[in-house]
Amino acid sequence: MTDSVKLVFNPAGSPASARGFSAIGVHAGFRPDPERLDMALVVADEPCAAAATFTTNVFCAAPVRVSREHLDEGAPGQPAYGCARAVVINSGIANAATGERGLEAARETCELVGEAVGCPAAEVLVASTGVIGQHLRLEPFATGVPAALAALAAADGPEARADQGLAAARAIMTTDTRPKHGAVAFSGDGIGYPGATFTVGAMAKGAGMIMPNMATMIAVITTDAPLTPPDLSAALTASVNRSFNKVTVDSDTSTNDTCFALASGAAAPGGPTFTPGTPAFAAFQEALDELACTLARAMAADGEGATRLITVTVRGAATADDADAAARTVANSPLVKTAVYGHDANWGRVAAALGRSGARFSQEDVDIDILGLPVCRAGLVVDFDEDEALRRFEEPEVAIEVDLHAGEESTTMWTCDFSHEYVTINGDYRS
Amino acid sequence: MTDSVKLVFNPAGSPASARGFSAIGVHAGFRPDPERLDMALVVADEPCAAAATFTTNVFCAAPVRVSREHLDEGAPGQPAYGCARAVVINSGIANAATGERGLEAARETCELVGEAVGCPAAEVLVASTGVIGQHLRLEPFATGVPAALAALAAADGPEARADQGLAAARAIMTTDTRPKHGAVAFSGDGIGYPGATFTVGAMAKGAGMIMPNMATMIAVITTDAPLTPPDLSAALTASVNRSFNKVTVDSDTSTNDTCFALASGAAAPGGPTFTPGTPAFAAFQEALDELACTLARAMAADGEGATRLITVTVRGAATADDADAAARTVANSPLVKTAVYGHDANWGRVAAALGRSGARFSQEDVDIDILGLPVCRAGLVVDFDEDEALRRFEEPEVAIEVDLHAGEESTTMWTCDFSHEYVTINGDYRS
Repeated sequence: MTDSVKLVFNPAGSPASARGFSAIGVHAGFRPDPERLDMALVVADEPCAAAATFTTNVFCAAPVRVSREHLDEGAPGQPAYGCARAVVINSGIANAATGERGLEAARETCELVGEAVGCPAAEVLVASTGVIGQHLRLEPFATGVPAALAALAAADGPEARADQGLAAARAIMTTDTRPKHGAVAFSGDGIGYPGATFTVGAMAKGAGMIMPNMATMIAVITTDAPLTPPDLSAALTASVNRSFNKVTVDSDTSTNDTCFALASGAAAPGGPTFTPGTPAFAAFQEALDELACTLARAMAADGEGATRLITVTVRGAATADDADAAARTVANSPLVKTAVYGHDANWGRVAAALGRSGARFSQEDVDIDILGLPVCRAGLVVDFDEDEALRRFEEPEVAIEVDLHAGEESTTMWTCDFSHEYVTINGDYRS
Repeated sequence: MTDSVKLVFNPAGSPASARGFSAIGVHAGFRPDPERLDMALVVADEPCAAAATFTTNVFCAAPVRVSREHLDEGAPGQPAYGCARAVVINSGIANAATGERGLEAARETCELVGEAVGCPAAEVLVASTGVIGQHLRLEPFATGVPAALAALAAADGPEARADQGLAAARAIMTTDTRPKHGAVAFSGDGIGYPGATFTVGAMAKGAGMIMPNMATMIAVITTDAPLTPPDLSAALTASVNRSFNKVTVDSDTSTNDTCFALASGAAAPGGPTFTPGTPAFAAFQEALDELACTLARAMAADGEGATRLITVTVRGAATADDADAAARTVANSPLVKTAVYGHDANWGRVAAALGRSGARFSQEDVDIDILGLPVCRAGLVVDFDEDEALRRFEEPEVAIEVDLHAGEESTTMWTCDFSHEYVTINGDYRS
């Protein structure tokens, strides 16, 4: 991006932060606890550009199929984009492994939201997160959607609207211990839109890519920048590949993973759209990347039972695929993750994971740092200060840095440690 | 194999069970505890056919490289075979990530054993298991090897020799809670060797493919059947692919994984070798498979902190690779493994793992049984008796059976559950 563009991060932001959008979370009744929000609605003032990335899991859930249809997607795993007016998300039930009846429920949800909002069902995107194999009831939508729209209409001023946006972020939580949301703003000065300020807002849920049973990572991103659906899709795909796709808690890709992006253009009405190759598009991409990476890190840090965020950086890989394979194998290694939990700078486990990752390198070339301490040079052990390592393990983030010295490619993955609590949560989840 | 051949399994067998071989374990001094056996020696009366499979980990250990050289192997991952007289294995130190000095130590170990046994160093195979990144001392070999040979020479009768074989199995243990060994015998009647009885004996260590830091799966198989080195290699590779390569505890392939096979021919001296395509070779292959699968299951069941052996069977896969990918992804899923630990017949986690495995199938076709109970049919939930499931979880072995209905291929993988104890062992290992 150009040096003159400055990004301003707002940790209290949400999908409601971008002009042209409202967002709210309500208790609709998917969950028994009346205090627990369980339905989020994001509504655009006008039909707007929309794009999405979806899980590649063969066992994809009904809402994934229906949202794909609504975005005219071709094959699974391909970019999906089109036009949308609203996004509805329930938590508690994943509507996965529910067959034809599940597809019907997802379609009826879109009908119901379309009627209430005043748009075709095809302009409604839907996502679900929760238990697999249970059927979704429509009654909570029938009461929850009108209640949500009434509350949005009654919102009095920007503060109330901001609070509603934060409620949306809470409504999509499952095993998350914290809501995940934010916004990034950048000025149009210097990128061809003088006087304008553009905002990207987002919410996400997911304690890592972690619980297929609680059906997993969902994000909604809004922006008031003007983009065409294919350009929005290109930016989203690039950003997701650098952020959410670099998070792994237990090597899982769930049945329901979904990331939606909507662009209203409301910050520059009538202005030209941001086009790839322009400073404006570069600024938008950077804002989107920053927001998505922030939320991705928050997911990894909120991994079930996590006590530490682990950042695995691999440099010097021969190809981008090698970098990804090496970093992903280290980040997914239960032995690396339990070592971090035990505050053990155990580079042998990192080396063994690298060695079986499929990445090409020579063991004689490998350097490994843990927590900033060189622990392996040229494939050989380096004496390091174990006491200093133990001190550094007190930090909430543990950096594992690898240089394969096999090329120029690099990447970063985020994960968390494996704790007793992880076993407790996942061993006792349904009981 | 022909119906007339009967396999007889001997749980008290070891590499010493096959004629023409002696085996023993001693305390040589790699470990501080004088009560703990830490060096195993297997010696053939004469130079004999030898074959091996080794880890494909790029960070392979020095003894792997040296044993490969001694078996004239081409590329890593390719079959290795040749002639050998002795196998020496130490536990406590893996001699991995030790550079040139490590290679030198492994070569000197072979020199030392060769001199003591009376054979060229190139006829000695070497393996190590233990901590990565520490250098191997030669002094324990210098005293341990002569002591082992003296004890073998002093052995008085078959019982003493059998006990020595069992000591060898104990000497290679690291985090194993139980020694792993056995033998299978079959008669030569009906397969062209009337009056002869052939034996395949083995020992193995490895609590699953589990601790790179403790450097991992090692097996030594002996037989008194007559085979040429390439035929022995072919049988060994086939058998390892059906057994040890189907065990996964935490998705790891260690730096030191090694499986040696030696064939003396002593049960049919002067007779023709077993040739692929003959009943004799088929009988040998079946005996080898049974022994290797028994030891592989024992490894999975002895996974660190394991409370249950998990057997994952995938049927109806389009290809053998699809079957392997599907079964392996389920067996490696921390969510599946924690669910079994929690006695939860959570088929949603199995489905999600299948869906991301890369195997080709339609979710509408998938059937899943857990512990013999149908829990998913045609991709949809099946009501099952949760109390009955809880009762069945009391068994030591948990069967997860999948039919993808996408073809004719099938496979079985073995793993174990993920327990609090696993986290404790691996989180606290070095401290």
